Amino acid sequence: MKIAVAQIDVVAGRPDLNVKKIIHEIEKARQAGDQVIVFPEMAVPGYLLGDEWENGAFVADCQAYNLDICAATTGIVAIWGNIALDDTRRSEDGRIRKYNAAFVAQNGRMVSTPVIKTLMPKYREFDDERHFYASRKLAQDAEKPANDFINPVEVTINEKVLRLGIILCEDMWSDDYTINPIEILLAKDADIIINLSCSPWTWRKNLKRHSVVKDRIRHHPVHLIYANNVGIQNNGKNIFLFDGNSTVYHPDGTIMKVADDYTEQTIRVDIMNDKHATVNAPTVSDQKDIEELYNGLVYGIRKFMAPFPSRKVAIGLSGGIDSALSVSLLTAALGAENIYAINMPSRFNSQTTRNAALQLAQNLGIHYTSIPIQHAVDHTIEQIDGAVFTRMNGSDAREHVSLSPLNKENIQARDRGSRILAGVASALGAVFVNNGNKTETALGYATLYGDVNGALAPIADLYKTEVYALGRYINREREIIPQTIFDIPASAELSADQNVDEGKGDPILYPYHDKLVRAFVEFRLDPEDILRYYHNGTLAQVIRCDQAIIDLYFKNATAFINDLEHKWRLYKINIFKRIQAPPIIAVSKRAFGFDLRESQNGFHFTRKYLKLKDELLKPV
Amino acid sequence: MKIAVAQIDVVAGRPDLNVKKIIHEIEKARQAGDQVIVFPEMAVPGYLLGDEWENGAFVADCQAYNLDICAATTGIVAIWGNIALDDTRRSEDGRIRKYNAAFVAQNGRMVSTPVIKTLMPKYREFDDERHFYASRKLAQDAEKPANDFINPVEVTINEKVLRLGIILCEDMWSDDYTINPIEILLAKDADIIINLSCSPWTWRKNLKRHSVVKDRIRHHPVHLIYANNVGIQNNGKNIFLFDGNSTVYHPDGTIMKVADDYTEQTIRVDIMNDKHATVNAPTVSDQKDIEELYNGLVYGIRKFMAPFPSRKVAIGLSGGIDSALSVSLLTAALGAENIYAINMPSRFNSQTTRNAALQLAQNLGIHYTSIPIQHAVDHTIEQIDGAVFTRMNGSDAREHVSLSPLNKENIQARDRGSRILAGVASALGAVFVNNGNKTETALGYATLYGDVNGALAPIADLYKTEVYALGRYINREREIIPQTIFDIPASAELSADQNVDEGKGDPILYPYHDKLVRAFVEFRLDPEDILRYYHNGTLAQVIRCDQAIIDLYFKNATAFINDLEHKWRLYKINIFKRIQAPPIIAVSKRAFGFDLRESQNGFHFTRKYLKLKDELLKPV
Repeated sequence: MKIAVAQIDVVAGRPDLNVKKIIHEIEKARQAGDQVIVFPEMAVPGYLLGDEWENGAFVADCQAYNLDICAATTGIVAIWGNIALDDTRRSEDGRIRKYNAAFVAQNGRMVSTPVIKTLMPKYREFDDERHFYASRKLAQDAEKPANDFINPVEVTINEKVLRLGIILCEDMWSDDYTINPIEILLAKDADIIINLSCSPWTWRKNLKRHSVVKDRIRHHPVHLIYANNVGIQNNGKNIFLFDGNSTVYHPDGTIMKVADDYTEQTIRVDIMNDKHATVNAPTVSDQKDIEELYNGLVYGIRKFMAPFPSRKVAIGLSGGIDSALSVSLLTAALGAENIYAINMPSRFNSQTTRNAALQLAQNLGIHYTSIPIQHAVDHTIEQIDGAVFTRMNGSDAREHVSLSPLNKENIQARDRGSRILAGVASALGAVFVNNGNKTETALGYATLYGDVNGALAPIADLYKTEVYALGRYINREREIIPQTIFDIPASAELSADQNVDEGKGDPILYPYHDKLVRAFVEFRLDPEDILRYYHNGTLAQVIRCDQAIIDLYFKNATAFINDLEHKWRLYKINIFKRIQAPPIIAVSKRAFGFDLRESQNGFHFTRKYLKLKDELLKPV
Repeated sequence: MKIAVAQIDVVAGRPDLNVKKIIHEIEKARQAGDQVIVFPEMAVPGYLLGDEWENGAFVADCQAYNLDICAATTGIVAIWGNIALDDTRRSEDGRIRKYNAAFVAQNGRMVSTPVIKTLMPKYREFDDERHFYASRKLAQDAEKPANDFINPVEVTINEKVLRLGIILCEDMWSDDYTINPIEILLAKDADIIINLSCSPWTWRKNLKRHSVVKDRIRHHPVHLIYANNVGIQNNGKNIFLFDGNSTVYHPDGTIMKVADDYTEQTIRVDIMNDKHATVNAPTVSDQKDIEELYNGLVYGIRKFMAPFPSRKVAIGLSGGIDSALSVSLLTAALGAENIYAINMPSRFNSQTTRNAALQLAQNLGIHYTSIPIQHAVDHTIEQIDGAVFTRMNGSDAREHVSLSPLNKENIQARDRGSRILAGVASALGAVFVNNGNKTETALGYATLYGDVNGALAPIADLYKTEVYALGRYINREREIIPQTIFDIPASAELSADQNVDEGKGDPILYPYHDKLVRAFVEFRLDPEDILRYYHNGTLAQVIRCDQAIIDLYFKNATAFINDLEHKWRLYKINIFKRIQAPPIIAVSKRAFGFDLRESQNGFHFTRKYLKLKDELLKPV
């Protein structure tokens, strides 16, 4: 059987564009002699649509396109993901009932009723249960076992009946569910498993997938096809990267064929007859991780900018590592001709960083200018420091306004972000970007309406140590980011206390705090967990940090606890800045944004934490 | 039976504070001779916690407090909402399994296993299915009917066995579900229904509740208790108002007793013996709606500010209706002594609005100052208009930056929001607020990093016509908001084209566009729906707008369609501003923010829309 797997770039919310592409691929496959063509999950509407799923006209429009696709299937079996509507029944939100479904058509006719997704992811960015009715709920409503609603679809190809075990994305990732759809389909003699996915890239996810596939078909070897889309899709606060990597597996779980990452591509196999060689499973290495991260970020930036009328981006270049990485990624994604870098010195910016920024711009060949902010900052300080409020209740009491040193630091940041960058970007018809990293995003080491600003936060899902590692990757062939930028301390340069030439910088111990933040955000650990691990000596191992670093930074339990509580407070309180922060490209196992939903509830320490703390601080 | 319903203020994320209150209420109830005391849903942890539910130490901390509450139940039955953990089984996200549950204890012992919520809301701000495992899933896993998992809890009071039908919030709102928990409990001879809720206020929700209750117990009359909390809880982008309004219903569905809105209060009834009079069901009127809206917003602002070290708020006062309403609400919530109003004129601000702003400040008795922005704006324009980028690729090509008139308008807005307001607020140790309304939030008629800024958007869930209506309500006893502010056109005063003295203002036809935006946001209508209703003459009725207004604004189908497409595009494209906007107090049936999840996907017109448009525009 000749199968084509069409790894298309699905544009969320644009069924018109997607269906044009689908029909074109079906034509091509027919001409190539393919008997079956498989498209990704939700190939017609896209997947990350937010609450646009509630728009009845939109979903009906998407469903209506099934007729067009169906009509194009002369001489071929097409399998695609789309929304299925049941307007005779309601969803639990009172609206028309919707299913995340796969459709199968052949010779201009639907071969079966829609195949309905069974397992509904509802963690991280996923909201399937919010929008779609699951086949397991249908089963419960009918007072039947869930198995009854999971069945192979029979198609006849060359007069042979083939039982297609069609599933949708999460249906394969059943480890944490009480139902295993692949097992049920194989028990019902499915000849092949076809997984229509819309599965974003995350760190080492594809490796994990290969092992999951191997496990699922271990007891009942069949070919398995994984059809994933490319492109980016977003949920407002996060941009997710769809790497494709569509794969055809041999019945032993090894790889028969795999599509390139981030590339629109149709792979073809003659699954039953051909002797396809086995493709080596990908290897794991830190270098490969960094390379994937780099490729994903560059792709994400390029795709994010694609719908804009212009690809121009303005960026503040401070001479620090964050903006250096950011501008390097932007240049790789959009071309030097589209990048407008602005150095915005105040009197606290050293010649060292200003030179480094200029050198970096030269190395990249981008547009560059310098716009000093000192005059404007002085004027703002003068206006605010001189402001007097009058109480208008007849007392005419007067209250003078007075700025603290920290207030003045923030004025500089806002002057850059809101006065200069936003102004220059709008004049250029460009967008501008936020250069914050994940560690400072977590701890709120950034100024709202200042460096938090931007249309996109390309590196806000990278810890500071990853920022440096990617910076070194950028320099892998020649020095693009000047070495100085790696050598000076990380510093905001907003006061004399942050003078890089005197070796002064941020109040964050990145080699440890990167790991602590990751433990909070990605491992979902509480201070109680951290303190328990610290106490029993396993912290370094759990958070994957050097023990020597922990020992170096914290002489005793008091120092450790003070820092832990300080950082937990910062992490929890600075939610208010993240609420107003730009969209983040998600590349970790948990990105700030819609991926990690946060309430502005302040901070709390558990009773177990307080007890353990008391024990540790008890005088010996 | 004497029952106390403790309408407490549940602080989300603070089990320590909540449990202290719960135990105190149990003490008081025992002293008052009550036999049963009922607390709201999730009274221990709070309900809107975002993904903090994934913090294992936190949820274990919350669960552990059950022991403390249990120990306090000597001589009384206590029923409270809390998280229940099952660490022997996993949730579908691979984490420890959690239930949204009710606990029942008496004489220091748990009376039963936890009562598990059956119906899981997952629309609007609700994410129950994301975090909690439903009793109906337990039933399916056990291959038993859902009914088996919904049972009354037996308690013995004065040697009489009483069967308590305990449910959680949504379990009562079963109309759109395939399971009706109240019906099941009554079929199993529940003597009373007790609904533990954490139910936010929405427009006329309490009226709807009274009719739902009546319907649920129609065929099987029993007393029904509705225990709701007060306070506010948030999900980052939205603040929800919990009005309490806890109610004890007679078996005929009429009201026996009801707690005051937004007040910590314990109501007591002797349910079986006493002859309680019936409280009149609340009436409906536009005036009452406005009053509830006002009370809710004032409460929301007050509670939002409560955790801050200072209650001081800075606010920009333009002399327009939005900031006039906003400052009036702030003053009512926080006291005139905490309000710092700043008028920030440029050369486009009329003497009319400046006088109105000053007069308003006098009427409220707040702090007031004026900080002109013209000098700073001129300097910014000069710096940016004079900026020259050099291409650093060896060509040294130069590109001059040039600001458009619109760019210059935005510079004024950002100067106010990011340079002055943010600076003054930080110097005062205050927060500052966003004064945008829902109509301009929808259409993007606001400047990011300018008037979009703020720690809170108190009126961003009000349409412009509601802003005026609330303004009139503010003036119900005496003129607080100067009449001029109602008389001049709504205007941003950012250019000579927006001169209020010449009757010029915003490019929005509020009496119609308010309704159009509501149709998009709350009724979830598509342009296809709007155009169909326009075509068949029912639009005015559907969107509840005056037909005369539609006829006045749009002479023909071309004009109507041009406007419809323009507004749909604005609505869809300006998502990017909402992503970075501050938290909104939700008072409508759908607020921007976490309540309405939006992806940045541009706009789309359905095929049916395009077809109908072609028909309408066809030359006759």
